[in-house]
Amino acid sequence: MPLKGLRVVDLTRILAGPFCTQLLADLGAEIIKIEGPDGDPVRQQGAIVNGLSWYFAQFNRNKKSVVLNLYDDDDKSTLSHLLETADVLVENFRPGILSDMGFGPRELERLNPRLIHASVNGYGTVGPYADRPSFDFIAQAMSGFMSVNGPPDGEPQRAAPPLSDLIAGLYCAFGILAALHERGNSGIGQQVETSLTGGLVSMLAYLSAEYFATGEIPKRTGNDHPIVSPYGLFRAKDGMIAVAPSTDVYVERFLEVLDLEDLLADPRYSTNSERLLHRNTLSQCINDVTCLRSVAHWITAINNAGCPCGRVMDLGEVFEDPQILAQEMVIDVPHPGHGSVRMTGFPVKLSRTPAGIQRPAPDLGADTEDILSNLDQHPL
Amino acid sequence: MPLKGLRVVDLTRILAGPFCTQLLADLGAEIIKIEGPDGDPVRQQGAIVNGLSWYFAQFNRNKKSVVLNLYDDDDKSTLSHLLETADVLVENFRPGILSDMGFGPRELERLNPRLIHASVNGYGTVGPYADRPSFDFIAQAMSGFMSVNGPPDGEPQRAAPPLSDLIAGLYCAFGILAALHERGNSGIGQQVETSLTGGLVSMLAYLSAEYFATGEIPKRTGNDHPIVSPYGLFRAKDGMIAVAPSTDVYVERFLEVLDLEDLLADPRYSTNSERLLHRNTLSQCINDVTCLRSVAHWITAINNAGCPCGRVMDLGEVFEDPQILAQEMVIDVPHPGHGSVRMTGFPVKLSRTPAGIQRPAPDLGADTEDILSNLDQHPL
Repeated sequence: MPLKGLRVVDLTRILAGPFCTQLLADLGAEIIKIEGPDGDPVRQQGAIVNGLSWYFAQFNRNKKSVVLNLYDDDDKSTLSHLLETADVLVENFRPGILSDMGFGPRELERLNPRLIHASVNGYGTVGPYADRPSFDFIAQAMSGFMSVNGPPDGEPQRAAPPLSDLIAGLYCAFGILAALHERGNSGIGQQVETSLTGGLVSMLAYLSAEYFATGEIPKRTGNDHPIVSPYGLFRAKDGMIAVAPSTDVYVERFLEVLDLEDLLADPRYSTNSERLLHRNTLSQCINDVTCLRSVAHWITAINNAGCPCGRVMDLGEVFEDPQILAQEMVIDVPHPGHGSVRMTGFPVKLSRTPAGIQRPAPDLGADTEDILSNLDQHPL
Repeated sequence: MPLKGLRVVDLTRILAGPFCTQLLADLGAEIIKIEGPDGDPVRQQGAIVNGLSWYFAQFNRNKKSVVLNLYDDDDKSTLSHLLETADVLVENFRPGILSDMGFGPRELERLNPRLIHASVNGYGTVGPYADRPSFDFIAQAMSGFMSVNGPPDGEPQRAAPPLSDLIAGLYCAFGILAALHERGNSGIGQQVETSLTGGLVSMLAYLSAEYFATGEIPKRTGNDHPIVSPYGLFRAKDGMIAVAPSTDVYVERFLEVLDLEDLLADPRYSTNSERLLHRNTLSQCINDVTCLRSVAHWITAINNAGCPCGRVMDLGEVFEDPQILAQEMVIDVPHPGHGSVRMTGFPVKLSRTPAGIQRPAPDLGADTEDILSNLDQHPL
């Protein structure tokens, strides 16, 4: 596995940090998840099946669990010893907390100058809100994401999944590998930091670019694209189809399938700028044709013409979809004592050294004895 | 810079692939963006200021531009030569197109066995939809994301930013660094692949976990959290506040600030499960108090009590916010001939070898002569 041999001490809990270390674990890194005597709170969250939270199982696969009480001096010195053997430390404490515990930057450097210290936090460690606690919902609100998300006539909407957690966790995993690459040249570690808010700000894409270029604050446009038309959901006989022609070439292919290519000769529809001004009448022309045939018909016909087309699937449909199954995005993982747990698969496919399941999510403290008894034998 | 010395040949266009290579470029990799004579279509998209699309400038900073006509045999042989000197090839063609152009897996391995070949595509290269074109909106629909996103009484909503593009691009950058780490041991490259659909499926988090555990298809819950209460937007005197207490400890801190901690003795509100059943009456109790004071008051008081609290900011507010500015999430980059371009900063902070601007987004073909004339001198 590509990250085999990499040892990560993981002090994170809940979601953003655990997702970061799950991504490293899936590619073969050894993740030593340090938990207090009560364990990561996610062990108690979501539906519990056969004594196990499937939400916890999803995000903690491929990890080892070691229980330490970090209020206890002996356990803190065990943590020091562990850090001497590690390549990476990941934590999602609020800024300053780790220093208060005795593991400030200087102490970490003294313990292990090769250590990469990665932190996922709410707002970043510099700036007036650095000490504020944060969670996904707050980052969605404070990043501007909610202000543009949702239907034009409704209130600002959060994204349903905890995207700021997951995006920050993924950025952090990327940053860790970049620092590791650099350490291959310099021989020394450094600090890597990502924040829930900064991560989501970096994903505003053309919304931020357009704001910077024009000074106009973008509004919520629901399923309409602010700078492309036609685009969105259209009515078929038995449901809705999603169509997204991003350039003139695709618009032409789409309209040809509907026998509506003559519309492009109409000055109201001949350019994207004109189509944006006449979005409603254009959508009406399209709906008048799409409503005559089935969703399945249009998905095949429009894709065959080279224009992207699909439909809104609920989670039941997604996880039975032949493409999702062919991509192995649903996997069943045996958890001894808890039965088999279904979870999502690996979004990054490596051809020669693929991601995989080495071990299920650990019971609390399952690896304490094994890891700690071998600490002296671990090569530095 | 951490990725200095890494040479990436970049055949991508539009957004997902260019975002992947932008992330590598920001950390110092040399990105050779290969464009046809007409250039990446994004050069013409969004607001054009002083002859430059700021959307293009954002996602192509720190890159070099080389124009090649890949329908021309001489230019194809130049590409072969370039690939011999590269560490990474990134492309976002539909599966099979690169092979049709003469750069199938065997040819790439013959040219350069150390080459990492990374691909971002719509659905993945295996499975019944592999040949379909895709775009962000379609991936949002086909991944299940839209089915859970939006208000409970409205239609499925896409996320406003093109999240599936950006997430797949970020996953791809992560996968490239993992393959590079592995190459450090094995000496040989491999294929890395991410898809718009798979990336977004992997971010359904507790929504997929709960579906797998219970068989119940999650519904749209708007700004309510399906498994946590209280949570969401509450009314202050002069606007809304966003509050997200994720565990009982935070709920207690939040209610204490409002002088409502007695509610926790009420059996309707004593546990999270009970609070989910009585969400509306609990929210009413909270709104009755929060509406008496200002947004600013509550943000300070609730954060000081250790419970995350913020507000929905629009993009104008976000990019003047002191925290966003302190985090350098807004930067101004001089583009000779086009003036200064404002864009978002770097979400991954490395302490010793930080991300930075080495060069602005290139004019079309700006580096063709420089790169091609030095091709023979490039160390293999």
